[in-house]
This record gives sequence, C-alpha cells and structure tokens, in this order.
Amino acid sequence: MTESGWTKLGLIAGGGDLPLEILRAQAGKPVFVVVLKGFADRDYGGADSVSLSVGEIGGIIKALRGAGCDAICFAGYVTRPDLKSLKMDARGLIMVPRALAAGRKGDDAVIRVVVDEFERAGFAVVGADSLLGQDGLPAGCLGDAAAVEAHRDDAGKAMMVAAEIGRLDIGQGAVVAGGVVLAVEAQEGTNAMLERVAGLPAPIRGDASRRLGVLAKRPKPIQERRVDLPTIGVGTVERCAAAGLAGIVLEADGALIVDRAGVEGALKRHGLFVLIEPPE
Amino acid sequence: MTESGWTKLGLIAGGGDLPLEILRAQAGKPVFVVVLKGFADRDYGGADSVSLSVGEIGGIIKALRGAGCDAICFAGYVTRPDLKSLKMDARGLIMVPRALAAGRKGDDAVIRVVVDEFERAGFAVVGADSLLGQDGLPAGCLGDAAAVEAHRDDAGKAMMVAAEIGRLDIGQGAVVAGGVVLAVEAQEGTNAMLERVAGLPAPIRGDASRRLGVLAKRPKPIQERRVDLPTIGVGTVERCAAAGLAGIVLEADGALIVDRAGVEGALKRHGLFVLIEPPE
Repeated sequence: MTESGWTKLGLIAGGGDLPLEILRAQAGKPVFVVVLKGFADRDYGGADSVSLSVGEIGGIIKALRGAGCDAICFAGYVTRPDLKSLKMDARGLIMVPRALAAGRKGDDAVIRVVVDEFERAGFAVVGADSLLGQDGLPAGCLGDAAAVEAHRDDAGKAMMVAAEIGRLDIGQGAVVAGGVVLAVEAQEGTNAMLERVAGLPAPIRGDASRRLGVLAKRPKPIQERRVDLPTIGVGTVERCAAAGLAGIVLEADGALIVDRAGVEGALKRHGLFVLIEPPE
Repeated sequence: MTESGWTKLGLIAGGGDLPLEILRAQAGKPVFVVVLKGFADRDYGGADSVSLSVGEIGGIIKALRGAGCDAICFAGYVTRPDLKSLKMDARGLIMVPRALAAGRKGDDAVIRVVVDEFERAGFAVVGADSLLGQDGLPAGCLGDAAAVEAHRDDAGKAMMVAAEIGRLDIGQGAVVAGGVVLAVEAQEGTNAMLERVAGLPAPIRGDASRRLGVLAKRPKPIQERRVDLPTIGVGTVERCAAAGLAGIVLEADGALIVDRAGVEGALKRHGLFVLIEPPE
C-alpha cells in the first residue's frame, strides 16, 4: 500500500485543531474518525466516528477495518499516557514491553513502535501535511517580510540550536533574542516555552514596541515525519507576540501550518513574520 | 597579583545566600562588601560596606581601593540589567559598547568583560569556592548513596545533555528521567526549570513515593569559573524533591555547594542524593 494508492482514510484524532482541519480538507471524501479518549478535545459529532483509548490498539485496528479504511493519519497532540491508569486491550498490552523499551530512547522511538504496528496491520500511513495540501511547505515568508533582515542572525542561531536540540532528541524548538538563547523546548512543549519567555526579565527580551527574537521549530533528524511534524497555528503566533518575539522560522518540507489564513491574519495584526527556509 | 598573595578582600555581593556564606567563612579577616543595588537581597548591616549600582564601575573600583582591597570575589546572582534604567558612572559608560558586543555572544562573554576591567585595575579575582574552602569539590556522594545505582543512567545522560547545552553556551543544567530529557535550562535559571518539571504530567516524572530523574549542573567549557560556578543549595534540593527527582549530579571541581550542612539535611529529609563525578 503506497501513500497515494489508498481509498478510505482513518483519522486518529488527538488534541487540538489539526484533526478537524484535516477533516475539513477532506470534505466530500470518506473519512472515519478514531476519537482518542482523554486527548481529542474538539467536537467530531458530525463525522462517522468511534471513541477509543490509546491503549485499545486491537480495538482501533478492528474499527478501522470495519469502516473499510486502508489508510490512516495520526493528527493532534498525544502526550505520554500513564500506563497504570490506561485502558488497554490485548493487542495494546502486547506492545507495552516494546513501548517501554522505546520510551527510554525518547518520544520518537515510541511513535515508531506504534506506527510499525499499524503498518504491519496493513494500513498506509499518510502525513497530515499531504492531506492538507501542504506537501512540501515551500521556502518563503509570510507576514512582515521587511522585518526578516533585521532578525536574520537570531533566526539562524535559533535554527542551529533547534538542530542540535533535535539531534539530541530533546525537542523541536528554541528561542533566540539578540544572539542569546532565551529558551529551549523539551517535554513542556512550545506553548509553555513561549509563555516562559514572556515571563523573562524585560531587558533580555522584546516587547510589542521593539520586537526581538525568533522562535525556531524543526523536525528532529530521527523524527517520524508522517506522524509528528513541527506544527504552528494561530495560538503559536499569539504566544510569540505576547513574548515580544519578531518572528518564527521553520524548515521547508519540515513543518505544518494549521489554519493558514488565521495565521496570516495574526501575523499582520502583530507585525510578525514566518520565515520558511530551505533545508540545509 | 596571584590568587593567594592578597591581603584584603572586596566581596561584590549579588542576590542569594552565597555572599553571606563567604562573609561567614572569612570571619576574623578583613572583608569589605560592595552591596549591588537591586540584586543583593540579604542584610550586610554588620559588615564594612558600600551600596552601589552594577553600572558604577568607577565608583566600585574607587571604593575597593579606598577600603584597601587588593582582591575581589564576585558572589551571588546578577541578571542582565536594563541598560536604559541602569545608573552608570563614566567608567561604566565606557564599558557599554564592549558589554553590548559581548552580550550577543552570551552571558559568559559579558562576565569576561567585567572581570577583565577589574583585573586591569589591579585586583586579584578570587573564586567563591576557594574562599569557602571548597577548592576542588571532591568526587563522591552526599545523601542516599544506595539510590545512586538505580539512577546512574539518568545521571549519565543528564551530564551528557548538560555538556552539550554548555558547549552551545545555552545554560548549565538539564533534567533527565527514565531516559527522557524533561527540561533544559536556558535563561530562566535552575529554579524555574525545576518548577516546570514539577508541573509536567505525572506519567513522565517521579514523585515522593517513586523518585525518578536526575538534575545535572556543570560549568560551560567557556565559563569564567572564578565568577560563575554552578551552585546548589537547600532551595535546589527542595525544588528537586518537589519535582519528584531522585538526585543531583555535579562535576568535581566544577560546582559549589552553599550551606553544606543544610543541603545534607534536606537530602536526608527527602531521600535524595548528590553525586559528584570526576571530570571527564
């Protein structure tokens, strides 16, 4: 089964807007939604769907097959679940030792274990970017293109730091302002990191009247890009603005922009930019 | 002027307990305290002292000379000051362009500019560790030595990550639990990082009943060790305990323990360890 040769999509929905956006982008085509209990936090009432726990791997596979799906897309946030309180079926239980072993290597290793299981069950795994028509996000700039030059050094250093952080499997993001690394993302996620930057002492960061600093997000080298591409949305832009930053830098083909029109509106409102750079 | 050939110490006091502890350790010897306005937050009422702004470099040098000091020790926290609101004298103003240029390279470069200025004025710069008799903190273990084995992998990975973070001049610390990098320290400081770990979802961190994870702190390779050695104290141990961690790992000769007796008490109270490893 290739990425393009499938007939019906199973959308495995975690938290946030991304799964809904994919559902909208696939309007008119047959989509079956697996609503992940405890993670999916949007209303999928209008869609053909089933609600299951992330530990019910056997149940999810059975439901997908029953609905006639031959492809799946993982979309939305899923954090590391608590194995003790997680509802699991037999197939989920069988995966536990492998997932635990992988867990010591990092999040990407766990994701790979789960993806392998679905591929072995015969499903094509399709990336959210291709379903959103963002296959290969092109290099370029959104928002205040004129501001990019003044912040190019920070963008370059933030991308370098994000690359090193990714190489070490720590996380996807970093914030650099005036040459200084203000924050590095690990398990807390991008939003918490941006809120932390907003809380730093005023002298080392920017504000609405004097924007300073750039957020970089890029995939880890070992990352399963079909499942866990760096993603930004309107909330990311709003948090960057609140933290006094001047912009965001992403890697072409290595990021996903949720609600593109909304993001462009927020960039214009705050005078921020999104720079998309060709991969090295 | 060598580190050991001096006669009277000028203690330049920033925030926290460290300057007070040095004052106590030097009891009976002549010490003159420069209380840094806006940073020093302890009572130096009993000592021969002057209160000056960090921008009054000329004033500080004059006061130190007037008091007969031939050596200085920088101790306690100083964050990047806001140049716009900083009170500066002529000598401070002259340093601004150099400090700004250094600031783009990171905190350590700024520290080096300031240290150079005092050395050129003829003062010997003495490390807080040598004044506390911790010259060369020896390898070993404080607290629950039995717990070290179970957490050796996390300690090793945390030290590796802290080394990489230091090499990139990002910060001194990292927290690893169960093989996963929970947090990396940049400008927010160790305390804020530990409070963030305490706020992470329960499944990925430890708690008082099942301690998991280790904080590593080590000097950056380019760090001016006489001025800015990684430091832990009772507050660090309390925050590690609240975050569910099992222990702390430091580098021999590369860290400072403030209030050693208090730290050992806190370790015992919570069942944590401090592992001091030989440098690689």
